[in-house]
Amino acid sequence: MTDMRKKLYEVIFKADTPSGKAFDVVLIICIVISVGVVMLESVAQIRQNYKTPLVAAEWFFTILFTIEYILRLYCVPSKLKYARSFFGVIDLLSIIPTYLSMIPGVRILRVIRILRVLRIFRVLKLGNHTRQADILRQALYASRQKISVFLCFVLTLVVIIGALMYSIEGPPRENTGFTSIPVSIYWAVVTLTTVGYGDISPQTPAGQFLAAIVMLLGYSIIAVPTGIVTAQIAHDTHKNQIPCPNCKTKKHDSDAVFCKKCGAQLNQCE
Amino acid sequence: MTDMRKKLYEVIFKADTPSGKAFDVVLIICIVISVGVVMLESVAQIRQNYKTPLVAAEWFFTILFTIEYILRLYCVPSKLKYARSFFGVIDLLSIIPTYLSMIPGVRILRVIRILRVLRIFRVLKLGNHTRQADILRQALYASRQKISVFLCFVLTLVVIIGALMYSIEGPPRENTGFTSIPVSIYWAVVTLTTVGYGDISPQTPAGQFLAAIVMLLGYSIIAVPTGIVTAQIAHDTHKNQIPCPNCKTKKHDSDAVFCKKCGAQLNQCE
Amino acid sequence: MTDMRKKLYEVIFKADTPSGKAFDVVLIICIVISVGVVMLESVAQIRQNYKTPLVAAEWFFTILFTIEYILRLYCVPSKLKYARSFFGVIDLLSIIPTYLSMIPGVRILRVIRILRVLRIFRVLKLGNHTRQADILRQALYASRQKISVFLCFVLTLVVIIGALMYSIEGPPRENTGFTSIPVSIYWAVVTLTTVGYGDISPQTPAGQFLAAIVMLLGYSIIAVPTGIVTAQIAHDTHKNQIPCPNCKTKKHDSDAVFCKKCGAQLNQCE
Amino acid sequence: MTDMRKKLYEVIFKADTPSGKAFDVVLIICIVISVGVVMLESVAQIRQNYKTPLVAAEWFFTILFTIEYILRLYCVPSKLKYARSFFGVIDLLSIIPTYLSMIPGVRILRVIRILRVLRIFRVLKLGNHTRQADILRQALYASRQKISVFLCFVLTLVVIIGALMYSIEGPPRENTGFTSIPVSIYWAVVTLTTVGYGDISPQTPAGQFLAAIVMLLGYSIIAVPTGIVTAQIAHDTHKNQIPCPNCKTKKHDSDAVFCKKCGAQLNQCE
Repeated sequence: MTDMRKKLYEVIFKADTPSGKAFDVVLIICIVISVGVVMLESVAQIRQNYKTPLVAAEWFFTILFTIEYILRLYCVPSKLKYARSFFGVIDLLSIIPTYLSMIPGVRILRVIRILRVLRIFRVLKLGNHTRQADILRQALYASRQKISVFLCFVLTLVVIIGALMYSIEGPPRENTGFTSIPVSIYWAVVTLTTVGYGDISPQTPAGQFLAAIVMLLGYSIIAVPTGIVTAQIAHDTHKNQIPCPNCKTKKHDSDAVFCKKCGAQLNQCE
Repeated sequence: MTDMRKKLYEVIFKADTPSGKAFDVVLIICIVISVGVVMLESVAQIRQNYKTPLVAAEWFFTILFTIEYILRLYCVPSKLKYARSFFGVIDLLSIIPTYLSMIPGVRILRVIRILRVLRIFRVLKLGNHTRQADILRQALYASRQKISVFLCFVLTLVVIIGALMYSIEGPPRENTGFTSIPVSIYWAVVTLTTVGYGDISPQTPAGQFLAAIVMLLGYSIIAVPTGIVTAQIAHDTHKNQIPCPNCKTKKHDSDAVFCKKCGAQLNQCE
Repeated sequence: MTDMRKKLYEVIFKADTPSGKAFDVVLIICIVISVGVVMLESVAQIRQNYKTPLVAAEWFFTILFTIEYILRLYCVPSKLKYARSFFGVIDLLSIIPTYLSMIPGVRILRVIRILRVLRIFRVLKLGNHTRQADILRQALYASRQKISVFLCFVLTLVVIIGALMYSIEGPPRENTGFTSIPVSIYWAVVTLTTVGYGDISPQTPAGQFLAAIVMLLGYSIIAVPTGIVTAQIAHDTHKNQIPCPNCKTKKHDSDAVFCKKCGAQLNQCE
Repeated sequence: MTDMRKKLYEVIFKADTPSGKAFDVVLIICIVISVGVVMLESVAQIRQNYKTPLVAAEWFFTILFTIEYILRLYCVPSKLKYARSFFGVIDLLSIIPTYLSMIPGVRILRVIRILRVLRIFRVLKLGNHTRQADILRQALYASRQKISVFLCFVLTLVVIIGALMYSIEGPPRENTGFTSIPVSIYWAVVTLTTVGYGDISPQTPAGQFLAAIVMLLGYSIIAVPTGIVTAQIAHDTHKNQIPCPNCKTKKHDSDAVFCKKCGAQLNQCE
């Protein structure tokens, strides 16, 4: 019995064995199709014309994922730890909305099923892209303080710009998009990030002048987050990944001859 | 008496003591809520429906900030220096508009209250994000000449592009957005910065051709400020500028203890 | 006979001889004009007014390119290898649609002729820009894993943002652009990439708030691909990777003759 | 006589003497105001209400710049060389349109006067921003081959994307913006550069799908020019500007001990 659980655990959670890999491939296909079904269901015309096959597919995948969830719960060593883990919660959120939809009046909840798409990362974690993803994650993690300082600065800026623009373009002037400070702040974000929908745009010369300054400002400060992340990635990418033979420290400069932590000589037999 | 002033100074201006930290947290909450009140007040529907609570909240925060301002003036060593400092002026601008609003006909001034949001930086200054903010500030400061040269170039460019576009798309052609050179320059800024509202856009083939060239140009020169700031941040962030005492090698990692070239110990007395 | 084939091969496929260079220049001019003809033909007004010269030019270039294709087939050593190569297929696709257009009812296929524009790269390959193009290609190739990890992350993000926005702004609300999840995902891509058409834009405060967050997010993560590619280009461009024969120092400038560390001569037998 | 010419030359062309500096300051002010006059004149309402002062100001500056041009011609050593130089042509173009405007029917030419704005660079050349501007100019110059390869690639891409989009969204479909291939190429440029006016945007699901791919592509390749320029600026900025004592070569790495060109030891007494 324990043997079967162990084997099931290896098939479902690992990707070392041929059957484990096959399970992952099938799972990815099921996830992609089921997410596609959720998307198609939201298109009014398709929902009306293909109601029966969509409902059938939805229940098919829900039951499949339910079985998978039960099997995962069954074969995992610590059930509680799995159920509380990030992917455990996602697994549950992927199936619950369909069951809840049998109770009338819970339309919005059905959208939660789209979170199934996150389950793809469970499988990708096992691929050989891990190292690259790690470099990106570490670069973002190492930059988190700089980025939060920057975002804090940007948020303050858009509040002030929004208020300024509201006092220039806003009421008592009529037929203007700048109807309130929150809407003007929304405009400031749209402009500073160079998205520029154009649903709200300044009409007065003074407003257009201020907007032009905000754009040139945005053009300049877009450089800051890019600079932060680039400097970090450039720093991390081309480090020597061979650990120090003495203290196992990694991430030496590529021209390093001695370990930066313990001073031992590095054998760069690369 | 002096003792109480000293203690008050530590609570209000510093964040080393528990009471100083508590004061800062309460202040941040008050600032955020009061800024929120100013924002909500500008929404026509909310202003009509919740007039009394909004006015009450506004006066509550104004009186609170007035008391705080008086206490700051009281406990600070040099009153004049504080009153003239950046944050001293902001503190005053945060409270004056409400009092002035009792005099009829000063609607626009009320928006100045939004500058309260800047007071958040007074508190953030005390946090541990200081070093990261310093790196960013220094990178921007070191790049100021390059960026001003670049902005000067961009300003000249948009003037010429605007005039060119005005002569292509402007009058006597009718129903065009390009009604004057200043408006055409505004369009050039909107396009070159890749904001692209679409409130003004070229209609003639010649105008669209020129616009396409301007966009590709903007695409290329957006690289310049990014390059300037990135090069500066990359230079500043990760390198210990203190040379190795033995072989004078510079540019060690900031966590290096031994020289990467000769293995000698670095004295990081920083 | 073989001699003529050999000479023809050198003229058509190589650019070392004066006649080979002349052939390339004539070919580039023909390609550019023929692509221009395809473009002009698509403009309704020009198609009606200049029907005869356009058709004449089209057949002129088609017959010219057909002769060129036959000559290439004739003089190339391995005919099958050429016919299956990338440029062999492009050469064929450049002429077939015109012949097929004599059969009625194949309008869309005619657009394929625009692929002629790709033939320019055949000629550019022989220019002296090759080394620069190689650096860019290698930088993109070396970054392909990081970029695919990043795109995978962005795709997941837009699916979730699209579904979230659909549930906030979508039906039963009417007169909204967010009519289905796929359309909402399209909006998320438009916003996250800072393109911002404005054909679909949020109308509710909650939707505008989410949109503002998505924009600031896009602003931050636009830094990631830039960082990846920049780090790679910076690494590849300016550094001679051959170590100094005396002290093994790497990363000399590409124009260095002597080692920057020990002064020994570098053997740049590259 | 020659003495006066020499002195005049120093005042007008150089900025070393107090009178030379004063001349430059006055010139900058005149240029800025005269450009402002040209801009204001294009605003219909201002042109009608302030016709006389605008015409007066225009003639005032034209006569002033004419005198300046004659003085420059008079005091410069080689008259022909000056008249043919870039700034010589700009100086002439700044005054001719006003004289030509006396001949009826030359409205468009008047816009050329805006080129006066370029004369500002003549004065800025003398400022202390020269070194920073040089770094930027050299970085762009050193990257010119990479950028032209990249632009060539982008141009090919937009032609193919435009043709593809035309065949998806174009005629016989009606009420679509994609009326011809050139217009579709314009759309492709607007989208790929993330400008996104929204004057033309895809309406069909297939078109929106292709547009989303184009945007993600644009998002990725925006990284390339940034990477090119950043790598160049990063390479140039932090070079040691102290020349080699033996062969005067500049631009050594900041950690260089020996000259990369002649192998001589560098005295880094920095």
